[in-house]
Amino acid sequence: MVLDRTVFFTKAALENHLFTDTIFKTLKHVFKIFSFPALVPWFPRKISDLDKCNHLITKYDPDLDQDHPGFSDPEYRKRRAQISELAFNFKHGDPLPYVEYTPEEVATWREVYRTLTAIYSSHACRQFLEGLQQLERECGYGEDKIPQLRDVSAFLKDRTGFQLRPVAGLLSARDFLASLAFRVFQCTQYIRHSSAPMHSPEPDCCHELLGHIPMLTDREFAQFSQEIGLASLGASDEDIEKLSTLYWFTVEFGLCKQNGAVKAYGAGLLSSYGELLYALSNEPEYKPFNPVETAVQPYQDQTFQPVYFVSQSFEDAKNKMRQYSSTIQKPFSIRYDPYTCCIEVLDNPCKIQNVLGQMREELKILHSALERLGQC
Amino acid sequence: MVLDRTVFFTKAALENHLFTDTIFKTLKHVFKIFSFPALVPWFPRKISDLDKCNHLITKYDPDLDQDHPGFSDPEYRKRRAQISELAFNFKHGDPLPYVEYTPEEVATWREVYRTLTAIYSSHACRQFLEGLQQLERECGYGEDKIPQLRDVSAFLKDRTGFQLRPVAGLLSARDFLASLAFRVFQCTQYIRHSSAPMHSPEPDCCHELLGHIPMLTDREFAQFSQEIGLASLGASDEDIEKLSTLYWFTVEFGLCKQNGAVKAYGAGLLSSYGELLYALSNEPEYKPFNPVETAVQPYQDQTFQPVYFVSQSFEDAKNKMRQYSSTIQKPFSIRYDPYTCCIEVLDNPCKIQNVLGQMREELKILHSALERLGQC
Amino acid sequence: MVLDRTVFFTKAALENHLFTDTIFKTLKHVFKIFSFPALVPWFPRKISDLDKCNHLITKYDPDLDQDHPGFSDPEYRKRRAQISELAFNFKHGDPLPYVEYTPEEVATWREVYRTLTAIYSSHACRQFLEGLQQLERECGYGEDKIPQLRDVSAFLKDRTGFQLRPVAGLLSARDFLASLAFRVFQCTQYIRHSSAPMHSPEPDCCHELLGHIPMLTDREFAQFSQEIGLASLGASDEDIEKLSTLYWFTVEFGLCKQNGAVKAYGAGLLSSYGELLYALSNEPEYKPFNPVETAVQPYQDQTFQPVYFVSQSFEDAKNKMRQYSSTIQKPFSIRYDPYTCCIEVLDNPCKIQNVLGQMREELKILHSALERLGQC
Amino acid sequence: MVLDRTVFFTKAALENHLFTDTIFKTLKHVFKIFSFPALVPWFPRKISDLDKCNHLITKYDPDLDQDHPGFSDPEYRKRRAQISELAFNFKHGDPLPYVEYTPEEVATWREVYRTLTAIYSSHACRQFLEGLQQLERECGYGEDKIPQLRDVSAFLKDRTGFQLRPVAGLLSARDFLASLAFRVFQCTQYIRHSSAPMHSPEPDCCHELLGHIPMLTDREFAQFSQEIGLASLGASDEDIEKLSTLYWFTVEFGLCKQNGAVKAYGAGLLSSYGELLYALSNEPEYKPFNPVETAVQPYQDQTFQPVYFVSQSFEDAKNKMRQYSSTIQKPFSIRYDPYTCCIEVLDNPCKIQNVLGQMREELKILHSALERLGQC
Repeated sequence: MVLDRTVFFTKAALENHLFTDTIFKTLKHVFKIFSFPALVPWFPRKISDLDKCNHLITKYDPDLDQDHPGFSDPEYRKRRAQISELAFNFKHGDPLPYVEYTPEEVATWREVYRTLTAIYSSHACRQFLEGLQQLERECGYGEDKIPQLRDVSAFLKDRTGFQLRPVAGLLSARDFLASLAFRVFQCTQYIRHSSAPMHSPEPDCCHELLGHIPMLTDREFAQFSQEIGLASLGASDEDIEKLSTLYWFTVEFGLCKQNGAVKAYGAGLLSSYGELLYALSNEPEYKPFNPVETAVQPYQDQTFQPVYFVSQSFEDAKNKMRQYSSTIQKPFSIRYDPYTCCIEVLDNPCKIQNVLGQMREELKILHSALERLGQC
Repeated sequence: MVLDRTVFFTKAALENHLFTDTIFKTLKHVFKIFSFPALVPWFPRKISDLDKCNHLITKYDPDLDQDHPGFSDPEYRKRRAQISELAFNFKHGDPLPYVEYTPEEVATWREVYRTLTAIYSSHACRQFLEGLQQLERECGYGEDKIPQLRDVSAFLKDRTGFQLRPVAGLLSARDFLASLAFRVFQCTQYIRHSSAPMHSPEPDCCHELLGHIPMLTDREFAQFSQEIGLASLGASDEDIEKLSTLYWFTVEFGLCKQNGAVKAYGAGLLSSYGELLYALSNEPEYKPFNPVETAVQPYQDQTFQPVYFVSQSFEDAKNKMRQYSSTIQKPFSIRYDPYTCCIEVLDNPCKIQNVLGQMREELKILHSALERLGQC
Repeated sequence: MVLDRTVFFTKAALENHLFTDTIFKTLKHVFKIFSFPALVPWFPRKISDLDKCNHLITKYDPDLDQDHPGFSDPEYRKRRAQISELAFNFKHGDPLPYVEYTPEEVATWREVYRTLTAIYSSHACRQFLEGLQQLERECGYGEDKIPQLRDVSAFLKDRTGFQLRPVAGLLSARDFLASLAFRVFQCTQYIRHSSAPMHSPEPDCCHELLGHIPMLTDREFAQFSQEIGLASLGASDEDIEKLSTLYWFTVEFGLCKQNGAVKAYGAGLLSSYGELLYALSNEPEYKPFNPVETAVQPYQDQTFQPVYFVSQSFEDAKNKMRQYSSTIQKPFSIRYDPYTCCIEVLDNPCKIQNVLGQMREELKILHSALERLGQC
Repeated sequence: MVLDRTVFFTKAALENHLFTDTIFKTLKHVFKIFSFPALVPWFPRKISDLDKCNHLITKYDPDLDQDHPGFSDPEYRKRRAQISELAFNFKHGDPLPYVEYTPEEVATWREVYRTLTAIYSSHACRQFLEGLQQLERECGYGEDKIPQLRDVSAFLKDRTGFQLRPVAGLLSARDFLASLAFRVFQCTQYIRHSSAPMHSPEPDCCHELLGHIPMLTDREFAQFSQEIGLASLGASDEDIEKLSTLYWFTVEFGLCKQNGAVKAYGAGLLSSYGELLYALSNEPEYKPFNPVETAVQPYQDQTFQPVYFVSQSFEDAKNKMRQYSSTIQKPFSIRYDPYTCCIEVLDNPCKIQNVLGQMREELKILHSALERLGQC
């Protein structure tokens, strides 16, 4: 029936020779959308799809990496495996696993905590310091206890909408970035080996809790992180590689100027005493942060970085990164719906209309708020 | 070539049976747009098209209406015809005609001015009073001189973007309303007969300059007037009749409450001493303003109205009217571009995209203005 | 120090006599905000505050209400108390309680389900029918099993962002409405007495799962429900009473026209066989839905309603309700942040700026989506 | 009275010690706005203020510049003076002066027209070529007649909202840029000396009509030009110098890539046969366009430029320029109101609210346009 009408209309249109171009364009577009699944890599559409974003990079595991301080400590490897198991079994919606840390693990944490907090005030950026203060005041951060992911996750959710999710080890770039699109941060829960409290070849809870979490309490940083995530969804392998390099040189190893001085905001630095001192010394090379160039800079995940990228300011880094993200070409437009925690593909006018309708309601609220402010 | 490709794609699409419904919808829409000129009455697309919006209703002319106070005064009819001639010859872009009024004409004006201004403070709404004050202070309004359209037009343009255009007499509703869509107010330039300074069966410069102009200095009223105009473009005869009735009971004869008292904001009242007193006396019937009902109320253009519609407030009238306007069904969406003074038909995504782009720039400006206000 | 500078500036300002009015206004505003906590009732600011929104109206409990079919069945009262206990103990963030229903309870559910679904196709509105179909297809709805809140909650979250929360009985209007502001629907989990499957004097899981849930799968209905909730936050007791009456005559007992026929969309009707038949028979009085009047209509929570309010359409009900909600006067403006699930009080320009910034990003996304759609 | 209340409130506030910081900030802001006129250079606030933006740079006049081809031709100098006189006497609102060009003048125009149009298709960018075609088709452009400013102005107004205004010679950068803020382009009306049709040391009607006007028919270019103008209002002398240098290397001498080839979009090139050939030859140096660097590049207004800046695309030039403009620091935010042709200083919440209100109406229009497009 629909078919018949369509044939009728199409023939009538073509016979008129009048707007064949319009029809052609329309059809081309319809085809493009129709065939789009074949062209782009799979990506999670809803937050529970993150259950499938669990591809690990295992080469820095204590089981495989001979340089790992825990390589020859079977007890450590067993304990790490147990905690990783919790993450393996985790499904979206489950309560975050609770880990009863051993006194030895807490001792490692204490040493890391003490050593690093001693130099933060001079080495970390303002946003980090403010975040850490809040965490100490309101979320039980301190040297005597390793914070539980569930407490930290609830705290972040209230502040910036970020949630944590346990992960068993180092994730593939695509999976890790994808989770950011949902304001989900994948966190390891095991701790580094007690013999090397100042460094870990793989992410551990010290890196997450001290390096990343304080930054994620900042509203702007949270939005910025999500935007990187959104840019990564359905991107080509080449673009994922670039985004991941940028992520490396900003979120992990970024420096920025604040009141004339260079400060760290990257989690890789803020969770490594040695590299934090080194990065802010005279030794390493500094380059101005410029996403197009930074995206192709080779990086180093075994020793200190030979080069760091410095932004004019924290805001500058965010703005440049945001602009870069928006240049990644994809054959579709997406939007995150924070209510349903789903990714919406904006492939027809009705979906766009729906968002515009929400914006009108939002504007109504701002309009009346300004009325009150201004006594208009 | 395009044709061939289209045929190919259409056939492929149909053979797949997969998204025939989408194609069908698209084609139907394309057809609708294509055939749209046939369905809707002509309407001006750019401000110079108003040169064609000059259809007069002549039954209240002094040449045809035996009750017109100037009917038996050939001198008056000649003078009125001369001034109307200026309007007939006017084209968009011409300087507005200058009329050297005679002492007798100025005397008529003076009497009208004195009599009416004596009761405005108690009978007119706040917006009218503020507008008139501005006109007296900055635009030469006063009893000794009939203001020239060109001065008044320049004054209004600076305040609210409204411009005047001379008109030879009473316009058809469709043409009059259409001009409002461009923030153009069509004004007669001749004056009523000296024998009846308190009343005129047809619009004259006293009605325009005293009744309408002060309200048009109000930003919100200006926007509201334009919206009525935009609603009228391409509307059916039936909808024009309703809009015109609503215009009658609001812009011409509207009353509203202010600080508990009923006040006039309609130009028909504010330029007629007798009806202004009558309308605010106990005699006439009052009904609450409700566009759906008001739009079908029969009206009276020969004597005083038997019924007036009272709004809860001036804002209430505007909001209800705005809402009503938006319910008028038309097979297309339009937008006024204030830069080009053109009506844009929003019939493809690119035009909508273009407006969104402008809104983004606007938001950028507001964003930085708020930053300054709040010292964010 | 700040105090000194303020005194200095204030004195300078006052001595200049130049913008005392501005200062005065500003101060007045500052005072208003400062004293605002004293003026408005407490309301939840974040989703976990709903733990405090648990004030029950107990008069229809089987323990107190002699007309309750379970009043003289101690076994039933015990079972109901056990299930309520789960809700009493529930805190935000806990997994939703799982209830193992008895065969007798499932039998009651089956009877309700069969009887009601038999008449839905002729009596329920389109949105309800579509929602129920989805629930049957994707969420295990059917006569053989009482759906678990946790499954339904996860399903709704994906569709419209609504979540469920267990509640021990009938909530106070203020608490119930407040939860809607967070897209949280408070649900009872016990079931009615087996002796009266067609009616329950108090809400039970049949009422929630069959009456309410299908409507909450509709995007627009979800947004509409949240708006009622937002309107209620911090409202006066009088306004809560009105909102609650409106809620009663819409969400619980609303009728609307669809394709010329009157259909039910209210949960009170859609979960009560008898009243559903009655409401769509010739017996009851119908009035057109008009929030201002409906808000003061006395209602009946013991027997069938003597009067029902009929909307021109489902959309009409939503629009009118939305408009009414926006007229509730409150001395502050709020906004819901769906990321943090917090209510933000928009009391300074920076907060407004922040929202505008988000809207700019949203517009950027829509801009590029339109570009793709239109091949601009 | 207001004073008294203010003193009362201020004292009460200070005694409470409670929100002195807020008051202090507010007062500081009020002071800043209050004292703002003293800090920023005068700038036009409404379009008629452009009557005061008439400061000429006279050093390239034929009366002063010994290298001017007309320096020793008193007849030419007299004719040029006559035409300039028309511009001197022009006031906003006057009809644009009509110049009856002599056959000799038309012959000069013809030669310029023929010579340049011969190389446009290979040297000019797409937007320029499309604009020129439109002008030939619809605005009487051709080699036999020098177009009149009033015709061109009316044509542009309909297309992009730009209007022309006659100017007596080379304007100061501040005045010239300011007029762009109002979408007004200041145009000379006299023509170059017949002895040197291929070059003029000062702007003349060949430069304006052939170099600038075709680009001003492009919607995006028009908006971009206005944004440069808006950025210049109230800017420091230093920023004016930079903006003016950028204007020089883009609007006057800009090159961009199109389909792999370098094309001219600058009016200085497109109105000079020799420099147009030279600029697209191998001889000059090319640099990538980068506003921060370009803004401080010394330039040459006597001979060909030694260096040209090439953009990746026309859009790239616009985007970079737009971004640069937004970085110019000014202690206030402004917005152009296209209805009133006035600059609004956004210094209180009510003005921002007003714009938001307009945006809501705009969104309503787009919302319904999308509804039609998508058959939602």
